[in-house]
Amino acid sequence: MSRRCWRYALAGAVAVVGLASIATDTQAERVRWKLHAAYASNIPIIGDTPTMMIDTVDKASGGEFKIKHFEPGALVPGNAYYDPVSSGALDSAYGTPGFNVNKNFAYAFFASVPFGPRAGEYLAWMRYGGGEDMAREMYGRDSIRFYICGIAPPETSGWFRNEIKTLDDLKGLKMRFFGLGAKVMEKFGVSTQLLAGGDIYPALELGSIDATEFSMPVTDQGYGFYQIAKHNYFPGWHQQSTINELLVNQGKYEALSDPHKELLAAACDRATLYMFVKGEASQFDAIKFHQSKGVTIHRWSDANLAKFEAAWQEVIADEIKENEDAKKIWASLSAFRKDYAIWKDNGYLK
Amino acid sequence: MSRRCWRYALAGAVAVVGLASIATDTQAERVRWKLHAAYASNIPIIGDTPTMMIDTVDKASGGEFKIKHFEPGALVPGNAYYDPVSSGALDSAYGTPGFNVNKNFAYAFFASVPFGPRAGEYLAWMRYGGGEDMAREMYGRDSIRFYICGIAPPETSGWFRNEIKTLDDLKGLKMRFFGLGAKVMEKFGVSTQLLAGGDIYPALELGSIDATEFSMPVTDQGYGFYQIAKHNYFPGWHQQSTINELLVNQGKYEALSDPHKELLAAACDRATLYMFVKGEASQFDAIKFHQSKGVTIHRWSDANLAKFEAAWQEVIADEIKENEDAKKIWASLSAFRKDYAIWKDNGYLK
Repeated sequence: MSRRCWRYALAGAVAVVGLASIATDTQAERVRWKLHAAYASNIPIIGDTPTMMIDTVDKASGGEFKIKHFEPGALVPGNAYYDPVSSGALDSAYGTPGFNVNKNFAYAFFASVPFGPRAGEYLAWMRYGGGEDMAREMYGRDSIRFYICGIAPPETSGWFRNEIKTLDDLKGLKMRFFGLGAKVMEKFGVSTQLLAGGDIYPALELGSIDATEFSMPVTDQGYGFYQIAKHNYFPGWHQQSTINELLVNQGKYEALSDPHKELLAAACDRATLYMFVKGEASQFDAIKFHQSKGVTIHRWSDANLAKFEAAWQEVIADEIKENEDAKKIWASLSAFRKDYAIWKDNGYLK
Repeated sequence: MSRRCWRYALAGAVAVVGLASIATDTQAERVRWKLHAAYASNIPIIGDTPTMMIDTVDKASGGEFKIKHFEPGALVPGNAYYDPVSSGALDSAYGTPGFNVNKNFAYAFFASVPFGPRAGEYLAWMRYGGGEDMAREMYGRDSIRFYICGIAPPETSGWFRNEIKTLDDLKGLKMRFFGLGAKVMEKFGVSTQLLAGGDIYPALELGSIDATEFSMPVTDQGYGFYQIAKHNYFPGWHQQSTINELLVNQGKYEALSDPHKELLAAACDRATLYMFVKGEASQFDAIKFHQSKGVTIHRWSDANLAKFEAAWQEVIADEIKENEDAKKIWASLSAFRKDYAIWKDNGYLK
């Protein structure tokens, strides 16, 4: 071949390589997202679920679809991700619908309900009873795509310095308490406040609070509440299960290829199973640990649980009055639970 | 460019296109598998779970990894897939470890255990308590890769023509019954036999059996047992949850790319969540339907359940005697359940 011909041959080859690269890029559709996490990644169960979800997406896409995890506070404060996802300032965020109640109180029903369902029943309502559709519609109003992406097992009912012999002992206590459960506790004379996880231990130590609830035993263990409050109450009637969410900016979602959409949905389903199962596996060792440190494990009597539940019925009747979304969703969940009871009461051993 | 140069340029381009195609083929790694299903795809929950798993793999891989579903009997008979997967005659199969007890009785513990755990506890033991590792080791002896790929909610305890007023009424009954539960029923004078799903209705109609258990209410509904047997008993103490499996020939598994391995595992986790949640959502309508057809729904008394459980303890003590795998696995499951009870008894509302 003449030198001139070599040049053309090379040019032809280079041109094709260029085209091939473009074709491969289109096919590969390299996606790079940022994800804000509302929980630090070192918190057991709720913290490491988004990292396993991200890992699945990365590995199963052969590195085509990478989501970078940012700790709470790195991009935005822990729970303040709704508006940034809506605007597209954040591609995506991981948290719980319960963090979005300042946008619409009705989001609470997609996160956790006092005296609410366990994981199987809750997910059954969400997925096949209309819950997820209603959630998607509500988030869609603000250009957000919603995914169920985790479900946590029950929390404990709280940590107290002294034994609660009757519910009268609750009167006048200052307690850290979250969400709708807080309104129930207030009916028993508890003065509640919401503190972030890291602020609870110092507040307990200083005595600015007398008691706290926070999360599951294995999570609470890491915060060390057992060092101060030696009475741990069960069951956590205020949060029998807690749905966690992945929120994605609608435009970012729509720009995904069909395979990546499918993969993201599958990864969140996998993450949901992971949180549920890992959560179930991880609590008894934490309870044993607490006992070894001198903590007494108490279970509320059925009579006291009935009193909490009666107070809850008053709270919820009041809360949904002014919110059409909340009315509709609560009616749907309540009707489903009535039906599900037919199955629960017959199908299961006690 | 001279004609001669054009030829070289074209040759250069073609050579590169050839290389690019090879590169793309390697990268894409087109996989085509056959999957034998032990359940017909039109059976609710257990039949459509493998098709949703396959669909996830297909879509999320952009069609690179396709698994073709074969109905029971098309390639091999329904439950007879262990040897063909082991030899590689089948790439993969979907069923339950309970179908493999003729190979090793210990497989029963990875499927369902009378008076055994619910889904959350069972999966917690499998995944984080050593169960899955032991299963992988046992299947690995026969060059099979095991995946948890579904978990079904409780079955009903059975369909009877007449009410069972005392357990003495069981004496002399001919009943279709599966697995370890059958050995328990035999202790109460029941003569058990195992019939395939499609053979049960005719046998009930002809009177060659007096009663049957089969599956969940929604599954039983499709078989029409309610038309003959008007007394449906709960809870299904013999199968409170049933793990379903994907088995893959070890060589076929090893030939997969890392992304496809990750995708297959994620798809089976997704399928596990699907079966659990869809199962929870689908039973109450079936129970209502049965009631509308004149079926009486009964719940065994606690006293009778205690008698079944005592008989089960005798059965299991006898069954594990001769099998080292079974002894080891039963000890592991029993120890885990003792620990888990600490959590179950405290963490949950009744």
